[in-house]
Amino acid sequence: MKKEIYLRARERALALFQAAHIALTSEEKDNVEVADFGLNDFERTGLMLITYINTSRCCAKEMAMLPGQTCPEHCHAPLPARGYTGKEETFRCRYGQCTLYVAGEPEKDPACRPPEGDEAWYTVWHQVVLRPGEQYTILPNTPHWFQAGPEGAVISEFSTTSYDEYDIFTDPRVQRAPTVE
Amino acid sequence: MKKEIYLRARERALALFQAAHIALTSEEKDNVEVADFGLNDFERTGLMLITYINTSRCCAKEMAMLPGQTCPEHCHAPLPARGYTGKEETFRCRYGQCTLYVAGEPEKDPACRPPEGDEAWYTVWHQVVLRPGEQYTILPNTPHWFQAGPEGAVISEFSTTSYDEYDIFTDPRVQRAPTVE
Repeated sequence: MKKEIYLRARERALALFQAAHIALTSEEKDNVEVADFGLNDFERTGLMLITYINTSRCCAKEMAMLPGQTCPEHCHAPLPARGYTGKEETFRCRYGQCTLYVAGEPEKDPACRPPEGDEAWYTVWHQVVLRPGEQYTILPNTPHWFQAGPEGAVISEFSTTSYDEYDIFTDPRVQRAPTVE
Repeated sequence: MKKEIYLRARERALALFQAAHIALTSEEKDNVEVADFGLNDFERTGLMLITYINTSRCCAKEMAMLPGQTCPEHCHAPLPARGYTGKEETFRCRYGQCTLYVAGEPEKDPACRPPEGDEAWYTVWHQVVLRPGEQYTILPNTPHWFQAGPEGAVISEFSTTSYDEYDIFTDPRVQRAPTVE
């Protein structure tokens, strides 16, 4: 990701956090993580986040998404070498709207579409709409993806330990670790 | 606790959550937990909370405190029979101010005083002031207590599993489980 894209995304994340009235320290503001998942298509596929805490036992993050932006399909598999049964995570919408798709009974007329051209990498269609104050818990090893509504979204995540580097994405092109040139 | 005290406390909790711009569902609003710790002195000693999620692996709560209100000193001990090493919790201030006292180097001139008459049950004096956006992680088995500033406080808690019924309070009169007449 080019540095100008990172900086612009960070500003937009901060505007979303401000719209959600999320108080942040200067250090947190300076270190917003911007993920384009290596697809170089940030307006459509991306996620902005602040990790509040991530210990060997639990984790909390605040996530922001641009209007219509999609976080691509992935799952959190068990990590037997670490004795880890996989990440359990609860998404709680704080602002805007987040439509979440998980494994399960597919929605007949889903409200969202994957980014055009990437449809092959979106395979789960059980729809959960999260408005502010609403939440949903995703168990380990459950494929999921999510998309923000027209105002964007701010979502709190409460979870067990995050090992983002081991997330398994359906799209083989995805690189989870952000790189800023 | 008399029902009228519960209902009044619930209204005040909701006003604090609203001041902090925390979105809640109707069900959450209807089920705010009000703890007077069995001391029948709610204005001075108490806590109001909503548990968003509490699984066998992790937990998240939103807590509200009245201006100057104190949550009495306690710790979260290991529970060997459950194979549980004790609750690890991160407090993140969202609104107002929370002054936290934990085991460690005592503050020479602490900003807070325990509720008058209850001083004997407050034994740790390492002071941590949390303003909006600031947070602190309390490891298992660490005694701690906290008090809200003049505007009250709203605090997010991110933690491992909560077993509130096993919290160990310094004050032997404390009963953690709220009862509403």
